[in-house]
Amino acid sequence: MNIYTEKTEEGKQLYAALKAEYEAICKKGLKLDMSRGKPGSEQLDLSMDMLDVVNSHSDMKTLNGTDVRNYGILDGIPEAKELFAALLGAKPEEVIVGGNSTLTFMYDTIARGMLHGFADSVKPWVQCGKLKFLCPAPGYDRHFAICEHFGIEMIPIEMREDGPDMDTIEQIVGSDASVKGIWCVPKYSNPQGITYSDKVVTRFAKLKTAAPDFKIFWDNAYCVHHLTESGDEILDLLEEAKKYGTQDHVFMFTSTSKITFPGAGVTAMAASVHNIEYLKKLMDVQMISSDKINQLRHVRYFKDLDGIKTHMKRHAAILKPKFDMVTGTLQKELGGLGIAKWTTPKGGYFVSVDTLEGCARRTIELCANAGVKLTEAGATYPYHEDPKDTNIRLAPTLPPVKELKITISLFCLCVKLAALERVFVQ
Amino acid sequence: MNIYTEKTEEGKQLYAALKAEYEAICKKGLKLDMSRGKPGSEQLDLSMDMLDVVNSHSDMKTLNGTDVRNYGILDGIPEAKELFAALLGAKPEEVIVGGNSTLTFMYDTIARGMLHGFADSVKPWVQCGKLKFLCPAPGYDRHFAICEHFGIEMIPIEMREDGPDMDTIEQIVGSDASVKGIWCVPKYSNPQGITYSDKVVTRFAKLKTAAPDFKIFWDNAYCVHHLTESGDEILDLLEEAKKYGTQDHVFMFTSTSKITFPGAGVTAMAASVHNIEYLKKLMDVQMISSDKINQLRHVRYFKDLDGIKTHMKRHAAILKPKFDMVTGTLQKELGGLGIAKWTTPKGGYFVSVDTLEGCARRTIELCANAGVKLTEAGATYPYHEDPKDTNIRLAPTLPPVKELKITISLFCLCVKLAALERVFVQ
Repeated sequence: MNIYTEKTEEGKQLYAALKAEYEAICKKGLKLDMSRGKPGSEQLDLSMDMLDVVNSHSDMKTLNGTDVRNYGILDGIPEAKELFAALLGAKPEEVIVGGNSTLTFMYDTIARGMLHGFADSVKPWVQCGKLKFLCPAPGYDRHFAICEHFGIEMIPIEMREDGPDMDTIEQIVGSDASVKGIWCVPKYSNPQGITYSDKVVTRFAKLKTAAPDFKIFWDNAYCVHHLTESGDEILDLLEEAKKYGTQDHVFMFTSTSKITFPGAGVTAMAASVHNIEYLKKLMDVQMISSDKINQLRHVRYFKDLDGIKTHMKRHAAILKPKFDMVTGTLQKELGGLGIAKWTTPKGGYFVSVDTLEGCARRTIELCANAGVKLTEAGATYPYHEDPKDTNIRLAPTLPPVKELKITISLFCLCVKLAALERVFVQ
Repeated sequence: MNIYTEKTEEGKQLYAALKAEYEAICKKGLKLDMSRGKPGSEQLDLSMDMLDVVNSHSDMKTLNGTDVRNYGILDGIPEAKELFAALLGAKPEEVIVGGNSTLTFMYDTIARGMLHGFADSVKPWVQCGKLKFLCPAPGYDRHFAICEHFGIEMIPIEMREDGPDMDTIEQIVGSDASVKGIWCVPKYSNPQGITYSDKVVTRFAKLKTAAPDFKIFWDNAYCVHHLTESGDEILDLLEEAKKYGTQDHVFMFTSTSKITFPGAGVTAMAASVHNIEYLKKLMDVQMISSDKINQLRHVRYFKDLDGIKTHMKRHAAILKPKFDMVTGTLQKELGGLGIAKWTTPKGGYFVSVDTLEGCARRTIELCANAGVKLTEAGATYPYHEDPKDTNIRLAPTLPPVKELKITISLFCLCVKLAALERVFVQ
């Protein structure tokens, strides 16, 4: 018997007691925010020295002798291409180093598909009639927003423990030529922190697609964002795809937004040389170059991939206690109650909680009414439609540990209340 | 009688002498480039101190308390909006401060028109059938490239001494609803250095357009780029347009690409609040913010518009001798010969030379064969089609004065040779 899900006298008393507790907290006038995956200021402080490495006395030439202060070099300075190639698991000639945002890079890439198509397109996507994208869900709301913006129909794909449901994906992309792409966050996925297994990656590499210009948007946003010493690693999709001749399906992205500074970082894309050459021709009309000074700043600061990895350990040292606070409190407050499940990710930026069916929206609302802002209900699903109303994304990185403790305790209280309301409130 | 255009014995001897002179120069193996409007390294040095103003010890908060190192603020930090509002002649709420490139901002704006239309569009431009843009010519090749890229038909408009031919513009935009926009560089135009008169600007503000969503792309790239103490000023188009209720036609752009660093500067757009709000909604899907650290760097370095103006005087001090060298040599070598006309701009980045009909391409080719690269023939016209083959864009900013002297002397020689070839070579 579960007093949170069945009508009992004990449950009724518990509900009254928790409600009183909740109402007392409401009176405190909290104003806390755990809604977005933003780094905390301590993390931002880690990269402040980077602002000094390119200064008024610096040599402003790249390795190939180009003055980074002037026009030129569409696809990134050579040393940045090398660094990001290492980060993305690609060759420098398979890389374009871009501006400050992967979101922009992905949006622009889809906009190019819409208006011009890709190298393997028969015609621009705007001329293809109905377009569809597969959306492993729960997933990243800003990916879904791009599809909605361009009128691309989203098909949710269930997430499993080792990645999205590949059976369904294979079936759909193999038979429906209007399915043009899929969004993936293959490592420490947003919001569940799931890392795709080698088997899943290989199945992506082997995908037979009805659309000749099917694209996998492989948003490796958390590629080095481990929380533990033994972080997850994934198979290199581009390399794997080459084995099966599907390398032109693959667009991989990453950035330093959560390594150095969000909005002032550097982003990069990796794809087959064939795709890179095609995209560069289109990009050449849109821009002369991205910010090469900022690229140089990043390369001189980190020097190489090891430099980035060392830096990421400092992030982990700040983030691990926050994630431990969240998962520890969830376990302490909700463990064994049968009203919530959650992930304990080894990296990334989120903890994903699944409440009882129909309780996520109400839990978030209860938190909001008590002054604690969570990611909005449904945000992790296409069209903001969480079919069972269960998923809540917790973003523990921004608040200080002290605030986090208050926030997560309140959250657990609200999960309980929302469950009890199902039983005791009509 | 003109020995450059009529067959005479004297002309024949001159041709032989100049040809010998040219062939001697060809043997020198020159490798000089006067093709693009790039600042010279002396100019880039002017802004090096800006790289120190935001450093590891800086306060990283904006005036409204936002940490510039983190996510947020789509339309630019408040102090940057204020600075660019002053530069653009607009109010801060009429401004979006963007990334590193006006070219990208303009391209993205047109891409938004294509895929979504503007606030006053009946439907997205891709669904409107044939689209046309007016292109005052000679003009900026990268504007024209955007139209070509999107399949927008370009209609060349003749440039007069005080701006484009407004009679023709009024007639076309008033009657043809497929004409959706016009490219303008209203001050120190590329390549002629022409500044639009108040009368021309007012006629733009009064334009009655058949298309409800007609847009004036007002690329004020050289707004503070004077060469002389008494630089040109233009009427503020957005303010002027408000008088006639046409403010929604106006998209104004500028950047610091040629104030601080090309590719690592800051760009901004001004438009009616109505348009700004509409565009921000679309931009919100593409990006979270532009690089706010670089915005802060610029604002803290310049402080205000006066700071920029003072800085631009230092640029002028470097550029004026280069422009004087070019126009002085043109006058000395070609003055009164009746084979070339040129502009003497009071600002901007170019000197525009018109040769005799049919001589521009050949002049550029002769220069190239002697190791001097000029902007390619036809580049200043839509589709690279200079109808009379007369226009050559000289870009004197990048080469040091010493190189410039060699370059421009060779250029004058080639102008003469190309003219004489018309008479003496079949």
